[in-house]
Amino acid sequence: MTPSLHDHDIPASGAWRPGRPPAGRRFATVTDPTSGRPFRLEGGGTLTEVEVAYETFGEMAPDCSNAVLVCHALTGDAHVSGRSGPGQPTPGWWDALVGPGLPLDTDRWFVVCTNVLGGCQGTTGPASSEPATGRPYGSRFPVVSIRDMVRVQALLADHLGIRRWRAVVGGSMGGMQALEWATMFPDRVGSLVVASTTAAASAQQIAWSHIGRMAIQADPRFRGGDYYDAPDGDGPHRGLAVARMCAQVTYRSDEVFTERFHRTLLDRLDFTLGPLFDIEGYLDYHGLKLARRFDANSYIRLNRAMDLHDVARGRGSTEAALARISAPALVAAVRSDGLYPPIQQHVLADGIRSVGGEVTWVDIDSPHGHDGFLIETTQLSEPLRTFLEET
Amino acid sequence: MTPSLHDHDIPASGAWRPGRPPAGRRFATVTDPTSGRPFRLEGGGTLTEVEVAYETFGEMAPDCSNAVLVCHALTGDAHVSGRSGPGQPTPGWWDALVGPGLPLDTDRWFVVCTNVLGGCQGTTGPASSEPATGRPYGSRFPVVSIRDMVRVQALLADHLGIRRWRAVVGGSMGGMQALEWATMFPDRVGSLVVASTTAAASAQQIAWSHIGRMAIQADPRFRGGDYYDAPDGDGPHRGLAVARMCAQVTYRSDEVFTERFHRTLLDRLDFTLGPLFDIEGYLDYHGLKLARRFDANSYIRLNRAMDLHDVARGRGSTEAALARISAPALVAAVRSDGLYPPIQQHVLADGIRSVGGEVTWVDIDSPHGHDGFLIETTQLSEPLRTFLEET
Repeated sequence: MTPSLHDHDIPASGAWRPGRPPAGRRFATVTDPTSGRPFRLEGGGTLTEVEVAYETFGEMAPDCSNAVLVCHALTGDAHVSGRSGPGQPTPGWWDALVGPGLPLDTDRWFVVCTNVLGGCQGTTGPASSEPATGRPYGSRFPVVSIRDMVRVQALLADHLGIRRWRAVVGGSMGGMQALEWATMFPDRVGSLVVASTTAAASAQQIAWSHIGRMAIQADPRFRGGDYYDAPDGDGPHRGLAVARMCAQVTYRSDEVFTERFHRTLLDRLDFTLGPLFDIEGYLDYHGLKLARRFDANSYIRLNRAMDLHDVARGRGSTEAALARISAPALVAAVRSDGLYPPIQQHVLADGIRSVGGEVTWVDIDSPHGHDGFLIETTQLSEPLRTFLEET
Repeated sequence: MTPSLHDHDIPASGAWRPGRPPAGRRFATVTDPTSGRPFRLEGGGTLTEVEVAYETFGEMAPDCSNAVLVCHALTGDAHVSGRSGPGQPTPGWWDALVGPGLPLDTDRWFVVCTNVLGGCQGTTGPASSEPATGRPYGSRFPVVSIRDMVRVQALLADHLGIRRWRAVVGGSMGGMQALEWATMFPDRVGSLVVASTTAAASAQQIAWSHIGRMAIQADPRFRGGDYYDAPDGDGPHRGLAVARMCAQVTYRSDEVFTERFHRTLLDRLDFTLGPLFDIEGYLDYHGLKLARRFDANSYIRLNRAMDLHDVARGRGSTEAALARISAPALVAAVRSDGLYPPIQQHVLADGIRSVGGEVTWVDIDSPHGHDGFLIETTQLSEPLRTFLEET
């Protein structure tokens, strides 16, 4: 049977916390505490101190001209490439694309990946200590936007001496960041690569996001968001697991679930409430796995940041926003993606073209649904390599 | 803002209970308590007493030859047609198809609809009193199967003097019952009408079902299933609401959500955890609405019955099962259905044809997803009327 969500070896929060092994993380404080100027958020709040956890791969050229920013999706982190190990429970989430000789060739490019603002893998987020109190922010951590994430990344770029990225690259929520980069800082983005993303979150995407929040907030162990001091095993694991199970289904497809699981039983058929079927064990496994390594407060805030994502906000229209983009763009779509369906990427590509932008379109022919952008690295490899060389 | 899920006017369970207004319900006890013979379930358990709540529409012909059985889907009930009122919170779920002059013409046919075994609208289910204790079954109510539901309906048919149905009709879980009727009792089914259903639940369907169970069982107010004596407002409403919200998204489509809700705000834009968007208010509304009128224990058991649905079980193969069907069949599919995608109805129709059966195929061209079988009554009307007249 699947392990219990109250196993005592699961910390109350799966967030990385100072004192644990840093693994590949490097850290930079991008706010200046001596100036007393806090980081102002799009929503109106402030953060006194923002620290960014990031990883780099390859060597920066002396003229800083070979830097590529890769942006992670909802449950990703700065570890885009490399092994798992102490302090880093997951291997690189785009391991097949980032490395020596790979399309994002680290013999050539200096690849930077940051954990996003509001995340839980080392960058300032709800599990971080609030400077004023020395205690985790918890429920007091504000809602941040994709634009806030991007402005934090821009401060890190300043810190690293990178004035202009050779390319900004991302899928899903990472694609939202890349789009905002090209819109907010057109002169700092040489080229734009986005997969399985959208110019604005759709009603259905917001619906799933809302359901995840409801599941987490309904968990009494969520304690309104202030669960960091709870003993191990006593965090909002069940709520986060339910949210993850929903997401897991929306990330894949009926087609692959039928092929992989069909109606296979975990054990023998009995007429109980279960779990009885392999697919149930799979969902329980993924729910538990995320609860071990992620933070519920980050989960609901990053989802909210995605809901708020709309390049048109404050810019008159989508067209006006996309007209700011000067970088040539590669736009990739997975044919079986039901969560970020190809129509969204077509709208985006057509929008960029309609205002005179240059778009390279990549169809990913895959049954794997939204996760196709993480899985179909072979199909992404050549278009990505060629695009980066030619732009 | 949306009402709270802990409003004190919501009973702990939305099940109909004896003593409330019966509305259109009639009741029949289909077990014989004097014989001491309980109803034996496919899963091995027994029920000492089974009472069926049902509604009828139209007049039975003297030779009982004009009876049509309509089977309801997951959250439906016996009230297939007519208004809402005391004891009946919902109007008829197929009101546009069942009535005088309508395709299921009650001037001509005697239409019967039963609340299913394990349901919560008057037929024996988890909220019913257990004869041995006089208290609600709750957690002690067994898992029932679609075949158990059908055998209870067959006992009701005996009770009403109906040896053979002119037609057995249903969509989704109702289609599963109709299919089992034609397979278990081929000589009692004159014709078969199924919409948006499947020969066997798919992995993705089981996945959503599992997630609904997890959400309900995670609610501390679920109390392991024994919540009937909790005060009003203290039932597993949040868990049931989360389950319903998930279902609601899978029942519709990205296309209609975008058209209907887009990114419309409930009020003004603010950077909070919400709810902020219309789609969130819509989900909260539907979650709460189901919590008011349904029972969480029924919800998880009926979902489990659907998971277990596989016409092949114990019959060698799907083909061998479908070869039992002697009735001509109408099979309808909604093109935008992502939960019971048209491929499932094609597999079913092709399977029936491959063993010599007769199938009329109906494409429902609708953007409404799985709920299309409930919404697109105009598209169903003529094919249904013609099929019932000609077979």
